[in-house]
Amino acid sequence: MQAVLEEVRRSTPLVHCMTNTVVPEVTANVLLAVGAAPAMIDLPEEAEIFATVASALLINVGNGSAEQHEGMRRAAPAAVSAGRPWVLDPVAVGALPVRTTLARDLVAQHPAAIRGNASEILGLAGVSAGGRGVDATDEADSALATARELAATSGAVVAISGPVDLIVSADRVTRVTGGSDLMPLVIGTGCALGATVAACLGAARAAGLDEHDAVVAAHALFAAAGTAAARTTHAPGSFRTAWIDALYELAPAQVAELVDIQES
Amino acid sequence: MQAVLEEVRRSTPLVHCMTNTVVPEVTANVLLAVGAAPAMIDLPEEAEIFATVASALLINVGNGSAEQHEGMRRAAPAAVSAGRPWVLDPVAVGALPVRTTLARDLVAQHPAAIRGNASEILGLAGVSAGGRGVDATDEADSALATARELAATSGAVVAISGPVDLIVSADRVTRVTGGSDLMPLVIGTGCALGATVAACLGAARAAGLDEHDAVVAAHALFAAAGTAAARTTHAPGSFRTAWIDALYELAPAQVAELVDIQES
Amino acid sequence: MQAVLEEVRRSTPLVHCMTNTVVPEVTANVLLAVGAAPAMIDLPEEAEIFATVASALLINVGNGSAEQHEGMRRAAPAAVSAGRPWVLDPVAVGALPVRTTLARDLVAQHPAAIRGNASEILGLAGVSAGGRGVDATDEADSALATARELAATSGAVVAISGPVDLIVSADRVTRVTGGSDLMPLVIGTGCALGATVAACLGAARAAGLDEHDAVVAAHALFAAAGTAAARTTHAPGSFRTAWIDALYELAPAQVAELVDIQES
Repeated sequence: MQAVLEEVRRSTPLVHCMTNTVVPEVTANVLLAVGAAPAMIDLPEEAEIFATVASALLINVGNGSAEQHEGMRRAAPAAVSAGRPWVLDPVAVGALPVRTTLARDLVAQHPAAIRGNASEILGLAGVSAGGRGVDATDEADSALATARELAATSGAVVAISGPVDLIVSADRVTRVTGGSDLMPLVIGTGCALGATVAACLGAARAAGLDEHDAVVAAHALFAAAGTAAARTTHAPGSFRTAWIDALYELAPAQVAELVDIQES
Repeated sequence: MQAVLEEVRRSTPLVHCMTNTVVPEVTANVLLAVGAAPAMIDLPEEAEIFATVASALLINVGNGSAEQHEGMRRAAPAAVSAGRPWVLDPVAVGALPVRTTLARDLVAQHPAAIRGNASEILGLAGVSAGGRGVDATDEADSALATARELAATSGAVVAISGPVDLIVSADRVTRVTGGSDLMPLVIGTGCALGATVAACLGAARAAGLDEHDAVVAAHALFAAAGTAAARTTHAPGSFRTAWIDALYELAPAQVAELVDIQES
Repeated sequence: MQAVLEEVRRSTPLVHCMTNTVVPEVTANVLLAVGAAPAMIDLPEEAEIFATVASALLINVGNGSAEQHEGMRRAAPAAVSAGRPWVLDPVAVGALPVRTTLARDLVAQHPAAIRGNASEILGLAGVSAGGRGVDATDEADSALATARELAATSGAVVAISGPVDLIVSADRVTRVTGGSDLMPLVIGTGCALGATVAACLGAARAAGLDEHDAVVAAHALFAAAGTAAARTTHAPGSFRTAWIDALYELAPAQVAELVDIQES
């Protein structure tokens, strides 16, 4: 995990983000803070090209336009053809029809990772009707069996975010505990986590590091920064600032001291 | 008023926001700070569905796409059919033709509240040509007669934001004084107020509380947080952070101590 | 330069921004902090009208929709017809085809200024393939000859942003040194600089001040605020807040003390 975070800082992976209308700015600031470089490109013609150039691609199906959705359908296979990892963030999938169809179609396009809350993972798999917006109404563990099956069928590392994050591959489950209750009160912490998963995967694939470790690294860094920031403030406005500062200031070697990581 | 703010914190109303391209992030962070849950959903097919599920709907006609406008036209009647309150924020209406037509069409769709500055309320009613962008070039009181007529004909509570906020129903006018001169220097304080009006209305309607009081509650909370934040800083970057912290930290019982509320 | 900054604070120029999906909020907050008024308007029908009313227009060709691009094509000539200055920010031009065609078409529409990093200026002129996203992979000085030719042929003041900013007219080059290494770690500092160039040009043109000086003034103010903010913090989250505070708090007379300005 530490090796992946060091590789991100060393190589500055360029992350192509196709994300929702709410979080582009915080996503970009988070990627810069962790040592990556963001580029938001949604137009279909440009997205298809850029996905082959960037280190990794994020597709977040939260609030977007029909034009952006067309771009996502073209960018995902382009990234795969070029050997680039891409991450699917199935925001509110299961609850809303257009994005549910889109996300299920995209699962067949070989994402390297899928990151969502338990409701979204269950909604993507067709097991539940999804959460209310970005809320997690299911506990992470309730989605474990579904995540394991999704990992096996899609080939992706599946991450279920919650008070305890579960990172699930076909043969491995990692639990990351840390962070702060204030994180869900700052919009975009989940969406920016998806982008950071992409950054870690981009750096890991280029350097030949383990991709399950890369997904764990992103979650551990986020939780560690949340733990650190919560020591300085108790309200969400100043927490947001402190958390971005912590993402920037934490050395990779400090991350493991601030979170609990369990393998099973 | 205090009862409405307590009900927001107790019930976490889900606010469906269809808003302009500038303010989604700050709007979401404000809704989270006041105890509500945001969801931005603009695609026509999804917006029409989600408006029936959310506690309340915000339609802010500031900078949006033709696709989003189509979604707004479908979402407003869907919300009304499902018994959900919706709020119209007529940004720069009167000054620009597409949004003026849109906003005037939407007034006929039974908004529970209309919130804007004096220029926008006058522009919506066809009395003036509207302000320059989001600036208020008319004083709130100059729009009082127009607001009262708009309240009577539309059935909405009409709120005119300014140094003194006027909340106007057919038979009641409430004046809220407080806040800070720094608030107009932070983008989205007005737009996020529209979203918070929706949160308060969603909570109030579900609990059977008075809807004029709900609109007053949102304005009082915003002004109180502005008053509190202005005690800690004199520049807009740090004011923005302090203001979001104050929205989160102020207990409903503290709000009335920080603002002046006059009924007439 | 000081006269331009004073004129901005005195006249509150209204800046019509057509910008990318990542930076509208920070751009608006920066414009408010420096004393201008922002309005983001992208719909073609409205943009064409508003460009004739605003003090100045910014066209930033970073991530936008086809609908917005159509609006840009209509707004630029409308601004020129009305005697309003407009600024072109050629984000990632050279690297991506749709925006490269758009930006090259727009150069023929008489921009008052063009602002980008060295890669983007070279990409706009067709000299290189552009940078990777918003990164500057070329040093500012390497683009000087190209910028001088672009200034001569387009009639625009051409600004090349970097650790040292170069402001280039056909017969004058100004170098501005200052700021902080943290500025590239805050998304939108470059894009908001383009908007502030527009604000300074809008104020300068209305008051009959020199337009090269206006472009210098925007760069000097940004660098001075960066220098001031870097004295208070060493991480990008808190730097962003301190930098916006400094943009608001710095008096025009203080700017020259915090940066180095060389004419040649």
